[in-house]
Amino acid sequence: MTEIYLDNSATTKPYQAVIDLTGRIQSESFGNPSSMHGKGIEAEKLIATARRKVAAVFEGHEKEIYFTSGGTEANNLAIKGAAYRSRRRGNHLVTSTIEHPSVLSCFQFLEQEGFTVSYLEVDRQGLVRQEQLEDIIGSETVLVSIMHVNNEIGSIQHLEELGRIIKNKCPEALYHVDAVQSFGRLPLKPVAWKADMVTASAHKIHGPRGAGCLWVKKGTLLQPLLHGGGQEYGLRSGTENTAAIAGFGLAAEICSTGLTEKAAELVDLKQAFYRKLLEAGPSFAVNGPNPRESAPHIINLSFPGLKAEMLLHALEEKGVYVSAGSACHSKHPDPSHVLEAIATNKESLDSALRFSFSGFNTVEEVETAAGITAEVTAELRKYFS
Amino acid sequence: MTEIYLDNSATTKPYQAVIDLTGRIQSESFGNPSSMHGKGIEAEKLIATARRKVAAVFEGHEKEIYFTSGGTEANNLAIKGAAYRSRRRGNHLVTSTIEHPSVLSCFQFLEQEGFTVSYLEVDRQGLVRQEQLEDIIGSETVLVSIMHVNNEIGSIQHLEELGRIIKNKCPEALYHVDAVQSFGRLPLKPVAWKADMVTASAHKIHGPRGAGCLWVKKGTLLQPLLHGGGQEYGLRSGTENTAAIAGFGLAAEICSTGLTEKAAELVDLKQAFYRKLLEAGPSFAVNGPNPRESAPHIINLSFPGLKAEMLLHALEEKGVYVSAGSACHSKHPDPSHVLEAIATNKESLDSALRFSFSGFNTVEEVETAAGITAEVTAELRKYFS
Repeated sequence: MTEIYLDNSATTKPYQAVIDLTGRIQSESFGNPSSMHGKGIEAEKLIATARRKVAAVFEGHEKEIYFTSGGTEANNLAIKGAAYRSRRRGNHLVTSTIEHPSVLSCFQFLEQEGFTVSYLEVDRQGLVRQEQLEDIIGSETVLVSIMHVNNEIGSIQHLEELGRIIKNKCPEALYHVDAVQSFGRLPLKPVAWKADMVTASAHKIHGPRGAGCLWVKKGTLLQPLLHGGGQEYGLRSGTENTAAIAGFGLAAEICSTGLTEKAAELVDLKQAFYRKLLEAGPSFAVNGPNPRESAPHIINLSFPGLKAEMLLHALEEKGVYVSAGSACHSKHPDPSHVLEAIATNKESLDSALRFSFSGFNTVEEVETAAGITAEVTAELRKYFS
Repeated sequence: MTEIYLDNSATTKPYQAVIDLTGRIQSESFGNPSSMHGKGIEAEKLIATARRKVAAVFEGHEKEIYFTSGGTEANNLAIKGAAYRSRRRGNHLVTSTIEHPSVLSCFQFLEQEGFTVSYLEVDRQGLVRQEQLEDIIGSETVLVSIMHVNNEIGSIQHLEELGRIIKNKCPEALYHVDAVQSFGRLPLKPVAWKADMVTASAHKIHGPRGAGCLWVKKGTLLQPLLHGGGQEYGLRSGTENTAAIAGFGLAAEICSTGLTEKAAELVDLKQAFYRKLLEAGPSFAVNGPNPRESAPHIINLSFPGLKAEMLLHALEEKGVYVSAGSACHSKHPDPSHVLEAIATNKESLDSALRFSFSGFNTVEEVETAAGITAEVTAELRKYFS
C-alpha cells in the first residue's frame, strides 16, 4: 500500500541530505563546541555556518539567532524570558486564543505567577480582532505574543498591522511571533512586523528533531530559561547539538531557496486536493479561512456526522496519514481550542481533520488522498449518518 | 597523524550503531509521537523502548525517566523545578562548590530569586565535608544537589552517606544527584543513595547529542521548566526527539552491558597512561584524588611552570586532544573553580590538563599519548621554565 503522509504540520520527514549531514557530523565532527582544541573549533564553525543560514531566512544578522532544542523551548524562552525580565516595568501580557499549546501554557503558568493575561479573540477566519488589541494594550503591557500561521487552520495574521498597533500604543512592549508553521514556507519580515522575537523549529521544515531557534532583535533583554556554561551568548546553556543545528541550517537553506516557487507548489497541492474532494462530492465544510487565503500547506475540513478519530483511522487503513486537531497536545482527546475559538459548531468540531502538505507530496498523491477521503466518508456515512 | 582523543568527559564519539539508528529513525520513523495515527504510535514505541533501557541503568522503573534535551536541561529542571515547587515549605538550598556550571548557575540564579544557598566545601580529594552537610541542613532545607563524579578531577562522592545525613536531618528535603559523568561508567544506586532525582546525558556515553534525562523518584513533585503540549507526563513539553532518545537508549544499553568489565578497562587505560607518564619522567602533579580512587575515566594533572592552554595546543599539534579545565564553560578563560576549591596552588592551577578516556581508546594509544605528553612538556620547559 502506498503511504500518503499529509500530517506535515505535525512533523516532516527530514531531507535525505539533512540525515546524511547529521550522520556525518556525529561521526566526524563530534567535538564539544566549547572545547579549546581543533575538534571544538570544527564544531563551532559548523554552528556558525548554520547560524548564518538560519539568520538569512529572517533577513537578519547571525547574532540575532539563539539556537534551542526546538520550538517549544524557543516559545518558553521568549514568553517567560520577556515576562520575568520586564516584570518591574509591568505585569500585563497579551496573546490570542488560538496559539499553540507551547505558547498558551506559558501564559497560563504566568497567570499563576501573578501576571495578568489578556486573550485576544479571533474572527471566524481565525484572525485577531485589531480593535480589541488596540483597546487592550496599555502602559503596563510588557509582552504581546501572536502566531504567524495557525497550525490547525492555517490562518495568516496581519503581523505588520498588529505590530504597528502594539508599538503605537506601548513602544516598550515586546512583540513575539511564533513562526513555527511559516518559517521556510512564507517570507518572514521581523523588521517590517516590528517584532522583537520570532520562533522557528527545524523538524517542521524537513530538518532534524532537536533544534529550533529564537530570533531576537538586537538589544532585547530576556531572562534565560536554562542556566549553565553560558552557550548561545549566555541565553541558552547546554552543549550545542552540533548535528541538529547544522541540519537545521541546511534545511533552512533548502526551504528558503526558491521560496516563492515552493510556496506556489504547496498551494497547487492544496488546491488539487480541494478541487478533487469537491468533485468527488462528499459533504464537508472548510474550517477557518478560505483555502485561497490560508497558509499554503494547511487545510482543515469537517465531515459532519462522522467522528474525526474514526475517520483518521479509516484513512490510515488506506495509507493516508492526517491529523484530528493538531499533534501538539500529547494524544489529547479534548476538542480543539482553535476550532472552538472560531465558533465552529459542535458537529464540525467533532469531525474535523487537518490535512497538511509538504514538498514531498505530489499532485497525484494528494488527488489520490482526496479520492480515498471521499470513499471513506461515503462508506462510514452508510453506518453512522 | 594518528588522532588520540582524550577529551571524553567533554563529549564522546557516538557508537556507529547509534549513528545508524538515529539515521534510520529520521528516515523511517519520523512521525510525531503525539500523532494519533500509526506513524505516531511507531515513534512512541521507540521512545518506550528507550525509556526501559535507560531506566534499567538506574535500576528503576520506566515511569521514573523524564527525557530532556540534555544534562543541562535535566539539572535545571531538577534544581529550579524542586526549588519553586517547594518554595512554600522553605527557601534553603544546598550544593557543593565543585558542581558543574549547569548546577552552580542555577543556584546562583535562585539566590537572586530570594533563596538562600549554602555551598559545601570539599577536601583536597574533592570530597564534600560530611560534618558541614550535617551542620547546614535544617527544617527549611528544600533541596540538596551533589554530583556523583566530578567532571574535572574525577572524585567520587560518598552518596549513600550523604543521603543518610540529608534524610536524617530533614526527610522532606529533596536530594538531587548530577550523575552525568558516572552514568554508564559506574553503577548507579538511586534507592540506596536515598536520592529523589538523578541527571544523565546521552552524549557523554557515546550516545547522540540532544538527549538527556532526569530520573525522578515516584511521588516527587517538580515545577516544569518547559510548558506546552504536556509530553513526558506533563513535566517536559515539546515534540520528543525520537531519534536522539532511541539513540540514548541504545547507548545506555551498550554501556551498561558488562559495566564492571568496561569500568575495569577504563581503569586499565588510566593506569597505563599514568604509569607511562611516571616512567617518562616529566615533573607533574595529580590534582584531586589518587588515580586509584577516582572515577575510571578521568585524571587531572598539572605541569608546573607551563601554561595549560599552550600545552593543550602543543599536544593537539601531535594529535592528542585533551582539555584545560573542563569544556563545560563556553571557551571560558577563568581558572577552574574545581581546582580552586581543592586548594590547588597557583602554579598547578595554571598548568592543569584533564585527560579523559573512553572505551574507544586503547592501551597502546594512551601510552603513546603519555609519551607525547612527556616529550612536549620537556620541549616546552626548555623555553618556559
